Amino acid sequence: MRILITGAAGMVGRKLVARLLQDRQLAGRTIAAIDLHDIVAPETPQADGISVRAFTGDLAAAGASEALIADRPDMIFHLAGVVSGEAETNFDLGYRVNLDGSRTLFDAIRLANYKPRVVFTSSIAVFGAPFPEVIPDEFHPTPMTSYGTQKLMAEALLSDYTRRGFFDGVGIRLPTICVRPGKPNKAASGFFSSIIREPLHGQEAVLPVPRSVVHTHASPRSAVGFLIRAAGIDGALVGPRRNLTMPGVGVTVGEQIEALERVAGSAVTKLIREVPDAATWAIVQNWPTRFEARRARELGFTAEQSFDEIIRAHIEDELGG
Amino acid sequence: MRILITGAAGMVGRKLVARLLQDRQLAGRTIAAIDLHDIVAPETPQADGISVRAFTGDLAAAGASEALIADRPDMIFHLAGVVSGEAETNFDLGYRVNLDGSRTLFDAIRLANYKPRVVFTSSIAVFGAPFPEVIPDEFHPTPMTSYGTQKLMAEALLSDYTRRGFFDGVGIRLPTICVRPGKPNKAASGFFSSIIREPLHGQEAVLPVPRSVVHTHASPRSAVGFLIRAAGIDGALVGPRRNLTMPGVGVTVGEQIEALERVAGSAVTKLIREVPDAATWAIVQNWPTRFEARRARELGFTAEQSFDEIIRAHIEDELGG
Ligand SMILES: NC(=O)c1ccc[n+]([C@@H]2O[C@H](COP(=O)([O-])OP(=O)(O)OC[C@H]3O[C@@H](n4cnc5c(N)ncnc54)[C@H](O)[C@@H]3O)[C@@H](O)[C@H]2O)c1
Ligand SMILES: NC(=O)c1ccc[n+]([C@@H]2O[C@H](COP(=O)([O-])OP(=O)(O)OC[C@H]3O[C@@H](n4cnc5c(N)ncnc54)[C@H](O)[C@@H]3O)[C@@H](O)[C@H]2O)c1
Repeated sequence: MRILITGAAGMVGRKLVARLLQDRQLAGRTIAAIDLHDIVAPETPQADGISVRAFTGDLAAAGASEALIADRPDMIFHLAGVVSGEAETNFDLGYRVNLDGSRTLFDAIRLANYKPRVVFTSSIAVFGAPFPEVIPDEFHPTPMTSYGTQKLMAEALLSDYTRRGFFDGVGIRLPTICVRPGKPNKAASGFFSSIIREPLHGQEAVLPVPRSVVHTHASPRSAVGFLIRAAGIDGALVGPRRNLTMPGVGVTVGEQIEALERVAGSAVTKLIREVPDAATWAIVQNWPTRFEARRARELGFTAEQSFDEIIRAHIEDELGG
Repeated sequence: MRILITGAAGMVGRKLVARLLQDRQLAGRTIAAIDLHDIVAPETPQADGISVRAFTGDLAAAGASEALIADRPDMIFHLAGVVSGEAETNFDLGYRVNLDGSRTLFDAIRLANYKPRVVFTSSIAVFGAPFPEVIPDEFHPTPMTSYGTQKLMAEALLSDYTRRGFFDGVGIRLPTICVRPGKPNKAASGFFSSIIREPLHGQEAVLPVPRSVVHTHASPRSAVGFLIRAAGIDGALVGPRRNLTMPGVGVTVGEQIEALERVAGSAVTKLIREVPDAATWAIVQNWPTRFEARRARELGFTAEQSFDEIIRAHIEDELGG
């Protein structure tokens, strides 16, 4: 099997590559080749018997998608994207990458006239307030960011292109991936990870919102698990509704902190400093809280059961256990 | 006030123009000028003191939207579109007109840097089976046609562009407009109108589906009423969810025929010939049935109360009473 990954230099992309090289097979087939694409040069980890190639460029540029599809990959993970904050401040870039980039890729597959599985990472940012207590699968998406709008539009394309038989698409709406490894970033959601990550490194972290804020999380490990499951699932089981809300752990920030205290002790949680920030809270208040994710669970997508598990996954995967 | 109408040569467009020239005012302001655009040359009815100009061309062509926005119309009715059947058989045309045409228009307004009201005719084709008994406003749109997909994508753009303050958009999801005047067309939904229209003209009509099929209708007169209401509504009342499912009359085909018999007698309904067509039925089975349309009703959008009223509106407006 030949695999193509867009956005392969990103956080989820790198973890997916590592997992695929370890598994050496996907959806019951042996992996022969993995092509990685990103606007930032992706690393090319070595693995005996698997060809790993890296391509660098703008996915939305003329001809870029066609070149990536030329070798007719059987499995395409479309992860490339501009994050929420950037899509909001840079209008043109967001539409160019998240909408036009996806459409160009989908059209290149359509015109290549074969039928690969396409797994697309959408986001729970397709949803906008007000919400019911628990958001059901059939709740309408009304995004409150340009990022969420672009993801929704790409979802709609994925669904229509699948219905028409151009490819076999599965869209997975990821919850916030937490604990995000690496440096703090400027995303409004950054604090959900930094209040765990920084204290575990003995550093202070700032909490800009009240402890009562509810949000849904899954670990990077679960995100990769979702991608693998989406790659292997029988399309007939998915049916015509190709975009699935992924499961996760819905908790208050207070519960996140209690979990951190259980796992790492109060010396660690003391490093969280509450500095209320009205601007951040205003954004976060419009974010979805809890999801039912019934269809995804029934289709075999699994996430952690508790925030303790999410913290332990971070300690195992990033801090050497 | 200066008004722009795209798709002005179409069925709804022509009726809207007639109504505006009769009212001579819109949203509490006197109408000074109406610009009509269509790929088919629109008629230019005369009215003292109102400038009516016609422009002909492809809305999606480079520069077309910019030219239409040059005079900064205060009110834009975006009705241009390729119908469902055509968007399904001609993939490129559907995406070009319904998606790219809308995006080009919206971008021309964005770049002109002013803030008109934009009223966009979406469709209940954004919804796809399976449905609950009555479809609530918060039900998720999962289109089962390329047309519905394109309308959904344009809705998402309208919403985001409104949120960002580029314009003040209201999307109205029209139910099937019935009785559609004029010649029978090839739309799969055509029979809903032809079983009323043709018999009233003393001609036979074919019913391809069982009488138990449920569908929601509003008259062309109501469609124009929705557009006028959307033009005048206070955007703050609409809030962030800019796309509204319009009310209509949800009836079985059997109830349509009973209404026709009440209004016009059994000599007329005898002209309906039942010729079951599996292909048509297969399409129609995935169409939405009944809508709650609560938000639209609360916001003052009104349709007929019964199918008898819809037939009487047709007789008054098209058959001289
Ligand atoms: N991490 C999360 O919490 C989360 C939540 C919901 C959805 N997602 C989605 O999952 C996917 C992966 O997330 P991530 O956390 O790894 O994001 P990331 O930002 O780490 O990775 C995205 C990658 O896309 C690349 N990219 C950006 N513009 C590009 C272009 N024009 N051409 C080619 N590549 C380009 C970036 O360089 C980056 O490496 C993204 O599509 C993201 O929107 C992530
Ligand atoms: N009539 C219905 O039952 C119904 C239901 C739901 C939604 N709608 C929507 O309402 C709107 C008006 O409906 P209608 O019944 O008057 O449709 P119509 O087909 O009679 O009118 C649409 C007009 O758009 C024009 N058009 C097509 N391509 C164009 C292009 N590239 N550039 C410029 N103009 C172009 C056509 O020439 C036509 O005159 C459409 O957007 C339609 O999708 C209609």
